[in-house]
Amino acid sequence: MSKEIKSNLYRDAGVDIDLAQSLLKKVKQKISSTKRPEMLTPIGGFGGLFQIDLSKYREPVLVSSIDGVGTKLTVAMMTEKFDTVGHDIVNHCVNDIAVQGAEPLYFMDYIGIGKLRSPLYEHVLAGIADACSEVGCAVLGGETAEMPGMYGNDFDLVGVITGVVEKNRLITGEKIKPGHTAIGIASNGLHTNGFSLARKILFEKCGYQANSRPALLEGVTVGEALLRPHTCYWPAINKAVQSSDVRIDGMAHITGGGLYDNVPRILPAETDVEFNRDALPVPSIFKLIVEKGEVDVVEAYRVFNMGIGMVWFIPADQADAAISICRDCGFNATRCGRVLHGSGKVRIL
Amino acid sequence: MSKEIKSNLYRDAGVDIDLAQSLLKKVKQKISSTKRPEMLTPIGGFGGLFQIDLSKYREPVLVSSIDGVGTKLTVAMMTEKFDTVGHDIVNHCVNDIAVQGAEPLYFMDYIGIGKLRSPLYEHVLAGIADACSEVGCAVLGGETAEMPGMYGNDFDLVGVITGVVEKNRLITGEKIKPGHTAIGIASNGLHTNGFSLARKILFEKCGYQANSRPALLEGVTVGEALLRPHTCYWPAINKAVQSSDVRIDGMAHITGGGLYDNVPRILPAETDVEFNRDALPVPSIFKLIVEKGEVDVVEAYRVFNMGIGMVWFIPADQADAAISICRDCGFNATRCGRVLHGSGKVRIL
Repeated sequence: MSKEIKSNLYRDAGVDIDLAQSLLKKVKQKISSTKRPEMLTPIGGFGGLFQIDLSKYREPVLVSSIDGVGTKLTVAMMTEKFDTVGHDIVNHCVNDIAVQGAEPLYFMDYIGIGKLRSPLYEHVLAGIADACSEVGCAVLGGETAEMPGMYGNDFDLVGVITGVVEKNRLITGEKIKPGHTAIGIASNGLHTNGFSLARKILFEKCGYQANSRPALLEGVTVGEALLRPHTCYWPAINKAVQSSDVRIDGMAHITGGGLYDNVPRILPAETDVEFNRDALPVPSIFKLIVEKGEVDVVEAYRVFNMGIGMVWFIPADQADAAISICRDCGFNATRCGRVLHGSGKVRIL
Repeated sequence: MSKEIKSNLYRDAGVDIDLAQSLLKKVKQKISSTKRPEMLTPIGGFGGLFQIDLSKYREPVLVSSIDGVGTKLTVAMMTEKFDTVGHDIVNHCVNDIAVQGAEPLYFMDYIGIGKLRSPLYEHVLAGIADACSEVGCAVLGGETAEMPGMYGNDFDLVGVITGVVEKNRLITGEKIKPGHTAIGIASNGLHTNGFSLARKILFEKCGYQANSRPALLEGVTVGEALLRPHTCYWPAINKAVQSSDVRIDGMAHITGGGLYDNVPRILPAETDVEFNRDALPVPSIFKLIVEKGEVDVVEAYRVFNMGIGMVWFIPADQADAAISICRDCGFNATRCGRVLHGSGKVRIL
């Protein structure tokens, strides 16, 4: 696999091919280790090849999502720490398709960069490979474009994931009913959303540096708190969708727009959800941002996940089983709300 | 479909959602018209859904590719002309998977931009939708991220395509043999490669403006010649792979690296190819660049396609039939080389 990635998929007229290849060599092993048996490797290859395993799916539905890391990259550049953003983009993508019940199959990245450099490049790719390994997702290829005029000293990181789900196991939210319980699963911080507001408050308004240690963060630096990688919820989702004790009727990945905007994406029109804001701890980075920025609480829940990175909607009598699965997988999870008759709205009490 | 694109897939914390939605409304119809029956549209959706049609494929192999437009975007910005770059990215992606025999199924885009603005945004999306319509490929979703700190007044455009091919109809190049004929299909200019060198010579060295009309271009401006959209070869490929008169044993999409780098990607190790550089006309934009930049001919063929955007390798007795198919589809195509015993090398005579 790594040969194909090196010689064919990671190629572009705009990139210093020799440097790219020598840096790729350092992470070749990691990228190769994500290979899955469904991957085909002919001698050449302009695209990546992945055979669908029809012994596992009768009516396979592909689920694909494309995302960027956004201005979290700016924080990575401030701290010259590039080993986490690969996890961010992979985990964000995995969550986005896992909420529909899909198993991640393969991932591809795009790096647009002013000047290819070490260790940035190999650290980003190593993070991608490690995050893919953790969920059994193959790195099928990628594209790197060196464009000094466009990116200057910056770079952008884009990821695309393709997964598959059996059609009758698609999770759409349509079966969410009044009486259902909302299970919240904890986030570890901002994940990859709300960085424009967070940076404005912490760096511009407060004048913090990335290595500042405000008392509220209890010894952790601002940079460390902001860069915590996006949590990947796939282990718990995978266990739950295979469990006969739990039927998840809807899942929402809480990204930009927070609970207010993401939950309605799967909510039937005749239901509302009431969330309890005290159900899960609010990570101290959010407390710092809200306090220093004097951010209104509704605004905060509209921009940030505020400690809830994912919500599952479950028949009430299965909530305990669902919470057990999450905890068995190492996640902090709890009841955080309930579904009522309504009109597709979210309230946070 | 357009509802999902508007409300779910084209969303990001970093983007002015209201502006994005009002601009999207202008191209809603075009995007909706790319819908394919395999697309599923549940009420919500964090990822796009596409069901594989198993009545058409026994052993479906997915073929995926990710690409950027590169610094051709800089020329689009110089001329404030944004209706062609969507065609560039779609057609580049389509060609990259079509050369392996894959039918394009769906496309997704990523736009990273300093400040979302009109008509840039809707013109880019309209170009994407139009180019997808032309090859029957669905626009399954996309992501737009507004990042003023990173992009300033610039933007980047990334595309991802997913296609499918029956496993035993994969075209890999493995069957290319000495005696095979290379068919060249004409390009209309740079496509999406070599822009760093082209811009340096034309704009920096020669001091041309985008609206300059050098004699060699016979009335066409430099901007117009550079922005000609990447040719999409799918109509000819689709016709050829379904024809019983022609068996294509290998196809190379001539992108960055030219004939020298792209043909060896599919060439068996024990073969060489000799190309005849006079087989197809060299578009005048290349003549201008080579002349004004005093570019060495080998260098030129290493950076640019020099008039050959795609090469097919065909058993010699089927070459006439293959050329007929190309011409029937409106392409200028001709014999441009032959396969010899060798060691995976390309010579251009």
